[in-house]
Amino acid sequence: MPLDFYFDFSSPYGYVAANRIDAIAARHGRDVNWRPFLLGVTFKRIGGRPLVDYPMKGQYSIHDFARSAREHKIAFAMPAKHPLATQMAARIFYWLDQRDPVTARRFARDVYAAYFVDGRDITDPGVLSAVASPLGIESSAMLSAAEDERWKSKLRAVTDDAIDNRKVFGSPFIFVDGEPFWGADRLDMIDRWLARGGW
Amino acid sequence: MPLDFYFDFSSPYGYVAANRIDAIAARHGRDVNWRPFLLGVTFKRIGGRPLVDYPMKGQYSIHDFARSAREHKIAFAMPAKHPLATQMAARIFYWLDQRDPVTARRFARDVYAAYFVDGRDITDPGVLSAVASPLGIESSAMLSAAEDERWKSKLRAVTDDAIDNRKVFGSPFIFVDGEPFWGADRLDMIDRWLARGGW
Repeated sequence: MPLDFYFDFSSPYGYVAANRIDAIAARHGRDVNWRPFLLGVTFKRIGGRPLVDYPMKGQYSIHDFARSAREHKIAFAMPAKHPLATQMAARIFYWLDQRDPVTARRFARDVYAAYFVDGRDITDPGVLSAVASPLGIESSAMLSAAEDERWKSKLRAVTDDAIDNRKVFGSPFIFVDGEPFWGADRLDMIDRWLARGGW
Repeated sequence: MPLDFYFDFSSPYGYVAANRIDAIAARHGRDVNWRPFLLGVTFKRIGGRPLVDYPMKGQYSIHDFARSAREHKIAFAMPAKHPLATQMAARIFYWLDQRDPVTARRFARDVYAAYFVDGRDITDPGVLSAVASPLGIESSAMLSAAEDERWKSKLRAVTDDAIDNRKVFGSPFIFVDGEPFWGADRLDMIDRWLARGGW
């Protein structure tokens, strides 16, 4: 049974998790379903706002994003513009995923790196095209998919299902055989959970 | 340099941390300053509310409290009445701490166990007396201290300093040589931080 990995492309801890989760799952013979969703919809639905907007907790979080990445030798630079709207990247992901899941995952990792390493604006179609091009993804088809009702509706369905049925309220949010884990700081717990078969 | 361990007696993750932190610090030749404070004051000052009051996150948290405790073989039962006001227990702690820090720490552990194992109401002076009695703490002196302006003012000072100067916004909140760590899920990171001298 693959792990389900919910994340928003604007989530720093989602980025940290994206850099670690495949290796953790692979150690236990598991695959991972990558599932970008829109955290902003969750916030609207049940309340909440980006971590960086909270007094005190926001400053702590910015410090902790970098520290958490550094511990695992993951490159990280807090982007000047944060958070960003991520529906375009997420729709493109699902368009790719249906044709070629391996490329979709690479695209997701590279979008994250463009934002959290290079500080590029991933709401900009030109930036997404530049990320996609080395992966052999044709730019105009990609940008059409980003505006295609089919992929808009797919992203809405994933996001609604995450919130309504799976009770996802943050990013990253990971399910291991139905067991929910919230946060990049749960990855080591997931590793132990997989090793022991729960506890 | 001792670690500074800020916690609220009504905090489930504070309870989990209280059961682990001394052993983690001791592995690295460190002591711990236990510092109960009032998380409710933080919430009033900067916004926020008890975890269990958030939609979805509340249910997840109750599940995760038990799972986090179980992993470390820490007894835990979610109390029916939660959260509770904790100023009485915290004032008594500081009264004890000034006379006998070892007994103060035992009292803190036993108050936590009374609440998170036995489900007793730690706002009740009779419950606190029953916790204190096996430690040789005289009940009437203890209950006088709980209403003494000196210990009221000490608790206010610790809480204000935690919020204003140390930017504490949650429980548990731990400082290692000035480095801030929020949450029981940071204890393993603290262990590694102490082992490596930071990173």
